[in-house]
Amino acid sequence: MGKDKVRIGIIGAGRIGKIHADNLLRNPHAEIVGISDLFAGPELEAWASSRGIPVVTTNSSELISMPNVDAVLICSSTDTHVPLIEQAAQAGKHIFCEKPVSMDLTQTQAAVAAVQKAGVKLQIGFNRRFDHNFRRIRTHVQDGTIGDPHIIKITSRDPSPPPAEYIRVSGGIFMDMMIHDFDMARYLSGSEVEEVYAQGNVLINPVFAEHGDVDTAIVTMTFANGAIGVIDNSRQAVYGYDQRVEVFGSKGSAAAANDHPNTAEISTAAGLMRDKPLHFFLERYNEAYVQETALFIDAIIHDTPVIVDGHDAVQAERIALAAKMSMERGRPVKLSEVPGVSLESQTATP
Amino acid sequence: MGKDKVRIGIIGAGRIGKIHADNLLRNPHAEIVGISDLFAGPELEAWASSRGIPVVTTNSSELISMPNVDAVLICSSTDTHVPLIEQAAQAGKHIFCEKPVSMDLTQTQAAVAAVQKAGVKLQIGFNRRFDHNFRRIRTHVQDGTIGDPHIIKITSRDPSPPPAEYIRVSGGIFMDMMIHDFDMARYLSGSEVEEVYAQGNVLINPVFAEHGDVDTAIVTMTFANGAIGVIDNSRQAVYGYDQRVEVFGSKGSAAAANDHPNTAEISTAAGLMRDKPLHFFLERYNEAYVQETALFIDAIIHDTPVIVDGHDAVQAERIALAAKMSMERGRPVKLSEVPGVSLESQTATP
Amino acid sequence: MGKDKVRIGIIGAGRIGKIHADNLLRNPHAEIVGISDLFAGPELEAWASSRGIPVVTTNSSELISMPNVDAVLICSSTDTHVPLIEQAAQAGKHIFCEKPVSMDLTQTQAAVAAVQKAGVKLQIGFNRRFDHNFRRIRTHVQDGTIGDPHIIKITSRDPSPPPAEYIRVSGGIFMDMMIHDFDMARYLSGSEVEEVYAQGNVLINPVFAEHGDVDTAIVTMTFANGAIGVIDNSRQAVYGYDQRVEVFGSKGSAAAANDHPNTAEISTAAGLMRDKPLHFFLERYNEAYVQETALFIDAIIHDTPVIVDGHDAVQAERIALAAKMSMERGRPVKLSEVPGVSLESQTATP
Amino acid sequence: MGKDKVRIGIIGAGRIGKIHADNLLRNPHAEIVGISDLFAGPELEAWASSRGIPVVTTNSSELISMPNVDAVLICSSTDTHVPLIEQAAQAGKHIFCEKPVSMDLTQTQAAVAAVQKAGVKLQIGFNRRFDHNFRRIRTHVQDGTIGDPHIIKITSRDPSPPPAEYIRVSGGIFMDMMIHDFDMARYLSGSEVEEVYAQGNVLINPVFAEHGDVDTAIVTMTFANGAIGVIDNSRQAVYGYDQRVEVFGSKGSAAAANDHPNTAEISTAAGLMRDKPLHFFLERYNEAYVQETALFIDAIIHDTPVIVDGHDAVQAERIALAAKMSMERGRPVKLSEVPGVSLESQTATP
Repeated sequence: MGKDKVRIGIIGAGRIGKIHADNLLRNPHAEIVGISDLFAGPELEAWASSRGIPVVTTNSSELISMPNVDAVLICSSTDTHVPLIEQAAQAGKHIFCEKPVSMDLTQTQAAVAAVQKAGVKLQIGFNRRFDHNFRRIRTHVQDGTIGDPHIIKITSRDPSPPPAEYIRVSGGIFMDMMIHDFDMARYLSGSEVEEVYAQGNVLINPVFAEHGDVDTAIVTMTFANGAIGVIDNSRQAVYGYDQRVEVFGSKGSAAAANDHPNTAEISTAAGLMRDKPLHFFLERYNEAYVQETALFIDAIIHDTPVIVDGHDAVQAERIALAAKMSMERGRPVKLSEVPGVSLESQTATP
Repeated sequence: MGKDKVRIGIIGAGRIGKIHADNLLRNPHAEIVGISDLFAGPELEAWASSRGIPVVTTNSSELISMPNVDAVLICSSTDTHVPLIEQAAQAGKHIFCEKPVSMDLTQTQAAVAAVQKAGVKLQIGFNRRFDHNFRRIRTHVQDGTIGDPHIIKITSRDPSPPPAEYIRVSGGIFMDMMIHDFDMARYLSGSEVEEVYAQGNVLINPVFAEHGDVDTAIVTMTFANGAIGVIDNSRQAVYGYDQRVEVFGSKGSAAAANDHPNTAEISTAAGLMRDKPLHFFLERYNEAYVQETALFIDAIIHDTPVIVDGHDAVQAERIALAAKMSMERGRPVKLSEVPGVSLESQTATP
Repeated sequence: MGKDKVRIGIIGAGRIGKIHADNLLRNPHAEIVGISDLFAGPELEAWASSRGIPVVTTNSSELISMPNVDAVLICSSTDTHVPLIEQAAQAGKHIFCEKPVSMDLTQTQAAVAAVQKAGVKLQIGFNRRFDHNFRRIRTHVQDGTIGDPHIIKITSRDPSPPPAEYIRVSGGIFMDMMIHDFDMARYLSGSEVEEVYAQGNVLINPVFAEHGDVDTAIVTMTFANGAIGVIDNSRQAVYGYDQRVEVFGSKGSAAAANDHPNTAEISTAAGLMRDKPLHFFLERYNEAYVQETALFIDAIIHDTPVIVDGHDAVQAERIALAAKMSMERGRPVKLSEVPGVSLESQTATP
Repeated sequence: MGKDKVRIGIIGAGRIGKIHADNLLRNPHAEIVGISDLFAGPELEAWASSRGIPVVTTNSSELISMPNVDAVLICSSTDTHVPLIEQAAQAGKHIFCEKPVSMDLTQTQAAVAAVQKAGVKLQIGFNRRFDHNFRRIRTHVQDGTIGDPHIIKITSRDPSPPPAEYIRVSGGIFMDMMIHDFDMARYLSGSEVEEVYAQGNVLINPVFAEHGDVDTAIVTMTFANGAIGVIDNSRQAVYGYDQRVEVFGSKGSAAAANDHPNTAEISTAAGLMRDKPLHFFLERYNEAYVQETALFIDAIIHDTPVIVDGHDAVQAERIALAAKMSMERGRPVKLSEVPGVSLESQTATP
């Protein structure tokens, strides 16, 4: 860009929007020039004022069209993502958008096409790619330490289910929760998923059944490079956020265990005890959130590809839709069965 | 039995037959009165003599019919299991038989029916049920520590593939290797498998493809109690024998890691290093082999149910056959699709 | 104070001074009003300007006497600590001072007396008390989980020795390096050290011998509560910064292992490997540095005792001097043998 | 010897004598020809009969003088060791003797001199040298993986104290318990201890004070190769038998953690839990006991040096006496201060 500072507008002042804002405030190469939220009011104004963010508005279009905005972070609800991406792309603004882009693959593809046409950058909020543990596993795969990948295993369990009102609009466990793992599967394997088979059940709370959803699921995958894989999800691991991966290959295996708040081990007559893993995504992926926006800023300043782009969004959504179809139909589903057009990646990954 | 010593005949003097013999020689409640092997000769006679085993014969029928034989251990090749079980049952001898009973479910069921009719005990060589790690996991499931099981995960990888001539007659990865894990899935979950979906690939050695087999496989399962599960197998983990399980439930999770030859950890400028896991089944399940025959002897002396019986053999084979069908047909297969009659268990397990 | 923001002057713009500054800039309850350094110049001015720090000066007295300075952070060289503490105390400013206060116990005590007379707060930069691992161990000791402490063990090894010019003025391994562990011993045991015996040797680099110093040392301690303890130090652990503690007591033991940059474990034919621990104090105690100044600010705002005060400084220095005497004389040395007056703590610790 | 079987007489039919007997019964190169015990009676005769041991006697001299006895295992009380060693040596029998040889260094040396004069083998029951974990650490030291040893650390804690009547005759914590660790220090460091400093306290049970003993102790050591070391002992670790070692050197560190009965880890809302370490020496050193007599038999058959010989006994006792002197006198004690003559080792170790 010929500049060393990117001017940012943040759309959506919910929890994740504010986290990104606070992270960017510490980034010497970012400047937050405004924040928009449908429910912006005195509270948000006070919050913005204490951080020196000059503009607060209820109108995201206003923020997008501000000439001193170089890039926007879309942190609003999922149903707003596609129109906001298209609007920002047309305005020539770089875009960071939380996952998923939409529940409708055709719309997601349309948004990505708009981005490609406009020649702006689009980074998707698959924050786990920026995690210290998973990046290290990926390095070990890429440098050949473990040889050709044969088996990919991902465990991803939340400490407690979301509220019922969220479950209703979440898009279901595959689109809302396992989509992170589908992206991780592509990231770790360095290959594309070709077929999935999904099993699920309602074992935690009947509310999931009321919305045609499940709370416990296992999905197996075949990859283009011949590897096979499996993801397991639970909406409620009472011992906390369980985030582990393993890539097994011809020369060995690379596995990441959970992170813990401390290493203290207590030995008593009752046995040996440790504290539970870091509680949930805000604690667990704290540094990953810092990294993902920092690298988004870097990619803009140096005009390099983003680490996770529109193609990655489309592929993860496509896998999620295939998983949903698989569970509904009780049979494996090929990704080619999921309607949608092919799109090329801007990145070298996976 | 009113006795405190069980007199044993061992059929088959291969590696596992000799291991059982040496273990029983240290068991004060067992007496080995003879051993038979098709290829018995001076070498086996010397081996038996050094252990005080009086009878060595090429004729298993002779051994079975000896009046001072209370029980037989069938350690010969799989194709001999069914006739030997039937013969021993008719002779009123208790039976320990290596897995699988046969490759043909109908025959296995016939053998089990003969055992039930004769009222003798039949224990199947699913040695892993007697392992210190897996028994502890099962205890934690049974005492309610982890609540209702939701997800069962089993990893089972061999250090290196068997020779090509073995692969040809092995019955395939599901019947030969994963059958242990199918039994483990039932043992750990305390429930029956209802449906499986199998994926596999040839990633290690094309020789598997030549015999219609795979060397890498993932099988997902649904259980009668609502749990879902997954097993992954590889014929070649270059870092050694990988034997791990996890049961995740409503109140927590119980997981068993690998056993290692020592706990030594080396820290150098290159990183932290540990020795690989115990090499293979003889090292890893050394104590389990001792336990399984000791508990077989116990069950005879105290006339209590064996820990793993004919029903367990039938069920594990049925799952293996369903997995094979699933992979061939590319779809999930219900156990009820696998031909065979229903049989009641003599045991309370799983 | 009746205020919710503490105005800070930072004395000394070396590495640690800048780290504290950057941490405080993110603390909504702190405001940095100036920074002084003997070598302040355009570079420091640019640094300060980019952070909105209005005053940059070579004159620490000027900073101390500024009416809008509520508290100072003394991050300059050790020989300046005592006069700066006395000056700040007289000016009624709260003080955070890096360890050690001085190499001369009488001077340290004089400084602490000046602080007590002035009624200001003095917090010492024993950053490890604020570490997540060690705090957790202390909690387990204090809540009685492990019963009465019997044995305290501390391992503290640096990844590589300091430069020769630093060794010359460092005050020796006990005053420069092990002083942290002496404080940790008091913190973890909740008791005072009564006697020490020190052994040391030059095993890494002869330069230590040239300055009458050692690079490898073990010190044993007896505590007032009857516990015994041991610290081991090395100036060079090639595998990285090794920071572990263990408190063993009547009801059990609490031990903290090292922190690592990730949890990735690699299994290959060569064995199992992990990355080395976090490299050095900046990486390892990153969060502890944030915590220690945050809690200093808290203590000022709420007028509560600081977590580590002048008494703690005096005691740690006294132990270090006793250890030095012990090694010189080749015999155990009681703390009462070390000249100095008794001082009461402002805090409830250890 | 020109033979492939060693004929053994066992002196002392207590717990450890019977364990050695049962282990040797499974050793094809050993034959137990008799057992003696002061209190031999019908019970011991029944025990021997069930194992095919032909001779049972109350007279150890009779056993020693039997012409078909090649070697004796001395497992009787400590006060009988020296006369039995001398008697066996004069009779030309190889000797395995439990530790310590005696409480009196001069007597121990006289016994060792008698052994050397007779040209028979003497192996001391320092069973821990045969442990899988500690051997692996020693290998890493010997092959240079960790460079020159700088710091040796040994933790050795019993699950519960011995009965009061045992404490009275035990010889004290250094001669009874820590003597194993003194031998381990020599074994791991590959060097001789030159000076020790001992601290101890009575924190568990006042009964120890009644016998002039302590129940908690820390001993620091200097080694001839410049290394320094520390051992900590407790008579009561409520979480079980705690047996860990660490050798830190110029190129890295090798550490052995405890052995556990299983690898099961339970994660619940309360935290993560594991079972305690293996309970006590019988469980923990089960395989080491098998190894130590097996290698004694090997050394006799192949006429090779034993792994732990009379010199090792003398040195460990000398260190124990120095530690006792150190605690009594409140100062470090050089090994040269302990009266006794120098003896050469038959072995290459440490």
